[in-house]
Amino acid sequence: MNAIDKFASLLTLTREPFPASTKGAIAGSRPDLRVPVREVALTNGEQVSLYDTSGPYTDPAADIDVRRGLPGVRDGWISERGDTESYEGRVHLALDDGATHADRDAQRIAELRAGAAALQRTPRRAKAGANVTQMHYARRGIVTPEMEYVALRENGRREWMAEYMADEAREKRLAGNPMGARIPKIITPEFVRDEVARGRAIIPANINHPEVEPMAIGRNFKVKINANIGNSAVTSSIEEEVEKLVWAIRWGADNVMDLSTGRNIHTTRDWIVRNSPVPIGTVPIYQALEKVGGVAEDLTWEIYRDTLIEQAEQGVDYFTIHAGLRLPFIHLTADRRTGIVSRGGSIMAKWCISHHKESFLYTHFEDICDIMKAYDVSFSLGDGLRPGCASDANDEAQFAELRTLGELTQIAWKHDVQTMIEGPGHVPMHLIQANMDEQLKHCHEAPFYTLGPLTIDIAPGYDHIASAIGAAMIGWAGTAMLCYVTPKEHLGLPDRDDVKQGIIAYKIAAHAADVAKGHPGARSRDDALSKARFEFRWQDQFNLGLDPDTAREFHDETLPKDSSKVAHFCSMCGPKFCSMKITQEVREYAAQRGIEATDAVEDGMAGKSAEFKAAGGEIYIPIQPA
Amino acid sequence: MNAIDKFASLLTLTREPFPASTKGAIAGSRPDLRVPVREVALTNGEQVSLYDTSGPYTDPAADIDVRRGLPGVRDGWISERGDTESYEGRVHLALDDGATHADRDAQRIAELRAGAAALQRTPRRAKAGANVTQMHYARRGIVTPEMEYVALRENGRREWMAEYMADEAREKRLAGNPMGARIPKIITPEFVRDEVARGRAIIPANINHPEVEPMAIGRNFKVKINANIGNSAVTSSIEEEVEKLVWAIRWGADNVMDLSTGRNIHTTRDWIVRNSPVPIGTVPIYQALEKVGGVAEDLTWEIYRDTLIEQAEQGVDYFTIHAGLRLPFIHLTADRRTGIVSRGGSIMAKWCISHHKESFLYTHFEDICDIMKAYDVSFSLGDGLRPGCASDANDEAQFAELRTLGELTQIAWKHDVQTMIEGPGHVPMHLIQANMDEQLKHCHEAPFYTLGPLTIDIAPGYDHIASAIGAAMIGWAGTAMLCYVTPKEHLGLPDRDDVKQGIIAYKIAAHAADVAKGHPGARSRDDALSKARFEFRWQDQFNLGLDPDTAREFHDETLPKDSSKVAHFCSMCGPKFCSMKITQEVREYAAQRGIEATDAVEDGMAGKSAEFKAAGGEIYIPIQPA
Repeated sequence: MNAIDKFASLLTLTREPFPASTKGAIAGSRPDLRVPVREVALTNGEQVSLYDTSGPYTDPAADIDVRRGLPGVRDGWISERGDTESYEGRVHLALDDGATHADRDAQRIAELRAGAAALQRTPRRAKAGANVTQMHYARRGIVTPEMEYVALRENGRREWMAEYMADEAREKRLAGNPMGARIPKIITPEFVRDEVARGRAIIPANINHPEVEPMAIGRNFKVKINANIGNSAVTSSIEEEVEKLVWAIRWGADNVMDLSTGRNIHTTRDWIVRNSPVPIGTVPIYQALEKVGGVAEDLTWEIYRDTLIEQAEQGVDYFTIHAGLRLPFIHLTADRRTGIVSRGGSIMAKWCISHHKESFLYTHFEDICDIMKAYDVSFSLGDGLRPGCASDANDEAQFAELRTLGELTQIAWKHDVQTMIEGPGHVPMHLIQANMDEQLKHCHEAPFYTLGPLTIDIAPGYDHIASAIGAAMIGWAGTAMLCYVTPKEHLGLPDRDDVKQGIIAYKIAAHAADVAKGHPGARSRDDALSKARFEFRWQDQFNLGLDPDTAREFHDETLPKDSSKVAHFCSMCGPKFCSMKITQEVREYAAQRGIEATDAVEDGMAGKSAEFKAAGGEIYIPIQPA
Repeated sequence: MNAIDKFASLLTLTREPFPASTKGAIAGSRPDLRVPVREVALTNGEQVSLYDTSGPYTDPAADIDVRRGLPGVRDGWISERGDTESYEGRVHLALDDGATHADRDAQRIAELRAGAAALQRTPRRAKAGANVTQMHYARRGIVTPEMEYVALRENGRREWMAEYMADEAREKRLAGNPMGARIPKIITPEFVRDEVARGRAIIPANINHPEVEPMAIGRNFKVKINANIGNSAVTSSIEEEVEKLVWAIRWGADNVMDLSTGRNIHTTRDWIVRNSPVPIGTVPIYQALEKVGGVAEDLTWEIYRDTLIEQAEQGVDYFTIHAGLRLPFIHLTADRRTGIVSRGGSIMAKWCISHHKESFLYTHFEDICDIMKAYDVSFSLGDGLRPGCASDANDEAQFAELRTLGELTQIAWKHDVQTMIEGPGHVPMHLIQANMDEQLKHCHEAPFYTLGPLTIDIAPGYDHIASAIGAAMIGWAGTAMLCYVTPKEHLGLPDRDDVKQGIIAYKIAAHAADVAKGHPGARSRDDALSKARFEFRWQDQFNLGLDPDTAREFHDETLPKDSSKVAHFCSMCGPKFCSMKITQEVREYAAQRGIEATDAVEDGMAGKSAEFKAAGGEIYIPIQPA
């Protein structure tokens, strides 16, 4: 079948709602402000609402045509602010799709362009002299609909969580260690405004990406994760990329970076942005390099600047810009075991060395700020000198760049441009905290966004695990967003399953961090699942997990499909050895006698032991307690 | 094919040596003391030696017949000590294989017994009044061959590591944080003796398990991992169990627990112990329960004691004994979300409650010590009250039991019986350190042996990852051995691949902990792999990883098999974007000009930039530097 059909068929697959789940919405202060949640119906009648990144794709009622794109959630909010204007925009050049690319297939690109024609939008930009960033509004005391949306989204439905947070003694024992974060019990729109104003959080939301469902990245909010997708010079196709987006947000990617480096970059991006309910980030230098035929030395500020505007008009929400990699730092990598491992970083290093000039990203930084604030594109200040192996961790090259990113943050904030800082790579456990400390110190609490870190180098094929360990730890320490690593890291391009494996590993790391920080309500989902586990509500246990499909398949492998989903044991211990069942028998015994297990021990229970033996055996508690 | 053939064919598969690897040995002070290492030959002529748990199975020269068992490495050492005697041993009862087990197949058991006949051994025990534990020897100042073996094994071949530890500045920057551990630069036999003498390390080595290749468990040694295998009332067979053992140690299990609970327990154990080069642990209460038809209340001290002797004669190296779960603690679990989740713990709780008596494991603890020291079986004091969900973590039930395990440790040490302490379960990140602190405080530095901990509850299907995070952290904090968790945890019985997945995840956690603690030489393997990665020595990168097969398969998926294994790029970025290649070009340029990258920046490099562009482009460094 042709590409479109293949894509369509794949898409059907990933539009299925999660088991026992329906799309819900938390209503805001205005009719056009409705925050999506995934409502999970449990077999005991309870309902649990979960944070939902999947956009309309998991809503069977939603009419979606990827060649038309998603509806613009923010259209009204943006236009009513009256500080932007539509304009013709930059002329789309053949070069934008990598015209000089050797393996370019003109006919195919034409075909793809045609397919994407309906995705063309007339761009908006700030009116002359205006600044349309969320940070600018925040600093002027304005609470935008985006900020209210974020507040509702972070809180979720606290009603169902209350039950699990009711026991004061337990809450005291489990009280999180925020490691310097200051997370309020309830996130208010005003709190969001204040965090954005002081630069401690960002809301990536380009005015040309009205389809985005706003989310916040900051140490006082839930830890977020990013999934990378992108075609490549070697393999992959546009259809696969958009399907990867839908697949990635289904499993929980809070935002997605399009790292395309091959042909058709511009067209690919139209498809992705127009169909994405989550913020999209890019590394503009990749496309700029395509425009000069892949010769780093031929890059110029003019070509780069043109690329920033091209992508800003398309609606990219944040740019990774390696402006902190300065000429004087390059020699610091000379004795490294793996030198420079950031693609963008190595490209700029090559440019700096061959011209023996300071990076144009650094010298033109304020010019870049002017573009960012005209579209509200956020900075993701790139760590071109991140360590590529354990033994390069925390070296002078890495920290010299980090301190420079701190200086640049101050400049960006001067322009009210939202900014986050990229970090880690390969860092052993005992060197992780120092990264967070340095970042907080030099970057003034601007959100930290780290790759992993990978805690060891010897796990090719399993780097999603080696890095989930570091990611959980640095997330707890205060990192706001974790960039995922797939099992294919260092080895090849992630396929559909690799992307899922990487995302689940990072959802685990991010959630472990939220629980450790004591994010209000974070633990409630664990409590609900464990309660289901203890009560042998297998379906609920599966459905409350990060991946209901896999949990169910694993259970099916050793026990027959339906019969065992209500069984009061599992294949691990078998009927006679189930510890939870035995525990319940003991409790049930106490309950039957109308006494607490406590009293059961205090009072002369010896006398009752014979009774118990008689009653004993296989007492079950009801699956749905009255 | 029949069971034996199926087993034999599986075994053939797992006897293949690892790619580019040969079996080596470090010679000790006597001809019968040779410590195995895996020698990996790199494509650049270097050789790397790795810690090897696979025993003779990866040695093509070894003649192995699983129906005869492995040769006894320790035979000479044990007999020459002259403090043990052979004796008839306990009579093997039909009951030992679960005679009362409903689904028992008499004919099959007879057949299996016959197949295992050649595995019967005449047991040894301490002569009257003698104590044959490694701790007893250690405290009398005797350095046993087992201790020397452990020292050589822990050090490995330091020669090849030296190169990677040569740079003082780098070593200073990367210096580990031992978190209170005191790991010497070189492990001497005398150091091992001292650690064993003071109870800070154990060498699980039953005198009836001469096949074991001695290893140490202690906070000042490499972090070890345990893999659980075992049949079950619901599925699995003996052949699968033994194959699981070979499979588990191939991937790095430092020791294995046989948790069989179904029929044929005794025979299964003969097969496993006789074919195991690693220590074997069991939970004797499981077999004792089989002997009373699965009715916990019917357990008696006599039946339990008989089971301990049965298993000690077979050669089990350590017993998990839940002697710290006392009657007064049971009511502390009443308000728990998931009560008691330890199988052994729940069985004893049921016994205590139904008889309203103190646990016979507690009241008879000194009688148990007498058995342990007659065979040198080590205690693994079980945590019957470990938390089964995040919200039960660190509660009074858990810590009351832990303190009791500390008391019991003192009693065991009074008898010179080697002892380790079991811990965690489900514990959020921020509550992990407290577990280590409490254990060190109350258990006097006896080795800590923890399950996970799982840092969150919502990852069914991925609990090997949720727990690898906690395992790495608690390993760094001082836990000596990590009990693995497979992806099937909470859902079903692990199959062959699940066991491998669990082991790799835990090798990652254990290695991350060794690196963080600064275990001398631990990082060298990472350095060797990263060097290979930077030099595009793909085969070396695969072969130095924890799972060469998977790494190679992943690379093959996106790039053609042979051609790309010497390519100076990979499918992730493609030729034009490879950061490592660009870095090398920059360095090569500097090298060609006979200058350091450093000078390249200091001196007027601008003038040379034209030159560079000319030379520029695709300069590769040789794959094997002269």
